[in-house]
Amino acid sequence: MEAICHRLVVIGLGLIGSSFAKALKDAGAVEQVIGISRSEITVRRAIELQIIDKGEYDLATVLNDLVAGDVVMIATPTLAVPEIIAQCESALCRGVIVTDGASVKGSIELAARQRLTAEALPQLVLGHPIAGSEKSGVEAVNPGLYRDHRVILTPLVETNDDALSIVASLWRVCGATINEMTVREHDRVLAATSHLPHVLAFALVDALAQQQESQDIFKFAAGGFKDFTRIAGSDPVMWHDIFIANSEAVLERMSQLQAQLETLREAILQQDSEAILASFVRANEARDYFLTQYKNVEA
Amino acid sequence: MEAICHRLVVIGLGLIGSSFAKALKDAGAVEQVIGISRSEITVRRAIELQIIDKGEYDLATVLNDLVAGDVVMIATPTLAVPEIIAQCESALCRGVIVTDGASVKGSIELAARQRLTAEALPQLVLGHPIAGSEKSGVEAVNPGLYRDHRVILTPLVETNDDALSIVASLWRVCGATINEMTVREHDRVLAATSHLPHVLAFALVDALAQQQESQDIFKFAAGGFKDFTRIAGSDPVMWHDIFIANSEAVLERMSQLQAQLETLREAILQQDSEAILASFVRANEARDYFLTQYKNVEA
Repeated sequence: MEAICHRLVVIGLGLIGSSFAKALKDAGAVEQVIGISRSEITVRRAIELQIIDKGEYDLATVLNDLVAGDVVMIATPTLAVPEIIAQCESALCRGVIVTDGASVKGSIELAARQRLTAEALPQLVLGHPIAGSEKSGVEAVNPGLYRDHRVILTPLVETNDDALSIVASLWRVCGATINEMTVREHDRVLAATSHLPHVLAFALVDALAQQQESQDIFKFAAGGFKDFTRIAGSDPVMWHDIFIANSEAVLERMSQLQAQLETLREAILQQDSEAILASFVRANEARDYFLTQYKNVEA
Repeated sequence: MEAICHRLVVIGLGLIGSSFAKALKDAGAVEQVIGISRSEITVRRAIELQIIDKGEYDLATVLNDLVAGDVVMIATPTLAVPEIIAQCESALCRGVIVTDGASVKGSIELAARQRLTAEALPQLVLGHPIAGSEKSGVEAVNPGLYRDHRVILTPLVETNDDALSIVASLWRVCGATINEMTVREHDRVLAATSHLPHVLAFALVDALAQQQESQDIFKFAAGGFKDFTRIAGSDPVMWHDIFIANSEAVLERMSQLQAQLETLREAILQQDSEAILASFVRANEARDYFLTQYKNVEA
């Protein structure tokens, strides 16, 4: 295929960055892929696995070489993104496009507005692929990771249409479906669908692990519990970052859930069958609706 | 194989009862299987699928024909079990063994003590197979359902050793591993591993379904959320019965979880990274421990 951009710089060669780079390189959608990592071993493996064409350790040097239309993908942990965006100021002013894959967008928008000039801001395209895996690191690279998954792009009012369109094209080459929403919408929706389930799973497994009978609890755990423990096996640092970065929306969702739990608790205490059943039936119906949505784009 | 008992009566031909009957009939572990259901269609299908040898609708008639060593499995919804146990009084006194598969044992023990004579009680063997499926009804029959799963038997202090041993043998023929614990231990452990995850999943999905953005929430749901919705797709009536029957232990577990959530909420509010990370790391470690347990007996 005809290349969408000349150079792609991927900062952070974990699951997200490696899989993005590999899908685009395999498809010939970019002429050259440069990978940036703090780890020499990671860079060497990324070259061996044909994820990147060459590796670099110093971001400033790489940024200086970029020209208008080149693309930088920031695929680092969420809390590291603002500092890297700030370093991209002069590249952005030269027409380089900078995008990211972080799970939270509000804190990044805020940092970008504080640290970038009005000239740089339009070239920044914030995004979030709704994909992941329990595996992590460069060895987890999977060029099919984004196929039939959604990628949410959250353009700012200043965002340049051409920059947005190039980032969307790259994701489409990866096989993803693009949805646009505002930063605020994104953070509210993701707090509900992703962040809240994770905080719940961590809380449940931690609470049970602290019980005296925790050995028996884990020994006799059945299906439902297995799903929770799978979620609670997610990377603690990554999720810590997400909860800090999206604390406002997460706290609001937690409050809603805590209120719901308290209502159910009261219903069970009062043996109020009607209220218990009504809640479970609503959950059942919501689940059926979810499944019809889910079939359209497997997430 | 040599038959373990002459006649097996299975009351309730849903997933649990049908799969138990079919596994024992296929193995030749019982000479005759009689199925009891309120539905004529279910009985007919159970005979067609070779789950039972014959069907009956009137429990009293069937019980009158049973002799010492025959086994009755009560595989009805939890809240229906006590009434059926009461009807088994005279059969129990004649040496018939009565067992069940309900998810809660405390409320059933209590009812049995109130409604059975001291002569009948020793022949009652309470049990709970830790197995299930999203599918239900006679069509969901699966003779391999219990293979490599745990069955918890909760003998009372009065329980006859021979009766216990025969019930354990039947479950072993189904491929299950037997564990014994007290009724109280069972209800506390299951409240943690099974009932609490279900109440959480119902609460989460119901809470989100009531949000204005629920359409977007379901549209952009990612992996973790999918697990929750799967659990929230469980049968509302069955779970209502379980929460009513095991309300004391469930309420205690809910309180523990609500306290844990409140602690995490406070930590996120205060941006207390140390506390957040400590909780997530404990959950991670508990999950790793769980996986080592889980490999032994796949549940």
